[in-house]
Amino acid sequence: MHTLSVKTKNQTEMIDITRDVSAVVASSGIRDGVCTVFIPHTTAGVTINENADPDVQRDILMEINKIVPRQDGYRHAEGNSAAHLKSSLFGSSATVIVAGGRLCLGTWQSIFFCEFDGPRTREVWVQVSGT
Amino acid sequence: MHTLSVKTKNQTEMIDITRDVSAVVASSGIRDGVCTVFIPHTTAGVTINENADPDVQRDILMEINKIVPRQDGYRHAEGNSAAHLKSSLFGSSATVIVAGGRLCLGTWQSIFFCEFDGPRTREVWVQVSGT
Amino acid sequence: MHTLSVKTKNQTEMIDITRDVSAVVASSGIRDGVCTVFIPHTTAGVTINENADPDVQRDILMEINKIVPRQDGYRHAEGNSAAHLKSSLFGSSATVIVAGGRLCLGTWQSIFFCEFDGPRTREVWVQVSGT
Repeated sequence: MHTLSVKTKNQTEMIDITRDVSAVVASSGIRDGVCTVFIPHTTAGVTINENADPDVQRDILMEINKIVPRQDGYRHAEGNSAAHLKSSLFGSSATVIVAGGRLCLGTWQSIFFCEFDGPRTREVWVQVSGT
Repeated sequence: MHTLSVKTKNQTEMIDITRDVSAVVASSGIRDGVCTVFIPHTTAGVTINENADPDVQRDILMEINKIVPRQDGYRHAEGNSAAHLKSSLFGSSATVIVAGGRLCLGTWQSIFFCEFDGPRTREVWVQVSGT
Repeated sequence: MHTLSVKTKNQTEMIDITRDVSAVVASSGIRDGVCTVFIPHTTAGVTINENADPDVQRDILMEINKIVPRQDGYRHAEGNSAAHLKSSLFGSSATVIVAGGRLCLGTWQSIFFCEFDGPRTREVWVQVSGT
């Protein structure tokens, strides 16, 4: 298992980690299998989405922040319950097929670390398994 | 890795792809492991849900379209930001256990390709890994 | 594949199943790989979130029940369409990395069975695959 470090700068933010995950796949020497990207935090998540127009990330965050408002009569004293729910909705892991020694992603896809309660220093765990 | 082709007919639509995924599992010859279904698109997703009453699919789409409205002050010029968020909420991969050479699904479960910005011709990537 | 049994007591509920999943990993004898937790039901799901303050689970359920209301003009006769959508949003599987023979979870993370249409007796399927 490899550990990546991510520094976030905003309360909610999407950070493209595809290059770092690809490097782990390359160094594993595994040709065919599956790459698991796991977020060991409960107020962050991971998703795969468009990497071309930064407005897509902006719109995704704007809308999820509207759907799950930061203040909404929550009881949890830390005040970040919205971030916990967003973490569950986006998910704590992404699974990507590995073929020919490379991550298989669609033309417009990147893997994004999703910060929902930043800014913080975060970890991403990556495992590559052969078929 | 196997590639399936899916033709969607509506802007949002759920299409049962269980039969095609099962065929990939059978042809792999793998008895025990995990099947990864991956969607290489950023305005579509995959989910596992009920296959018995078509009203369930209709209700799921009706409600998610209400929660994430198509128009909502988005900045992305293509006008499909809602589809991008739905893709992240439903997810770009499904993982199903394989045992005895077969996909393990509950009685009422099917695997659905989820179109959020159709109609289009789409791909689904399927990988089977042994334990 | 191992089957766990879960008895839920409320209509919506999060139940920590980490201890049972860990036991399956230990008994598998696998040192490095991936653990797949799969829910074979269409009105339940699985998520990984905070296990420290029970108010987090309460807030997550309160807010998702508000976002996806139980009554909202659904057509499905069983009246549990909201539970079906929550199942798709939370997801039917969780993937956790296994290293050194143990589940790799962050400090505050637990694996939760998510009941969205209880109370019922439910199953959880667990598979451990080596790298």
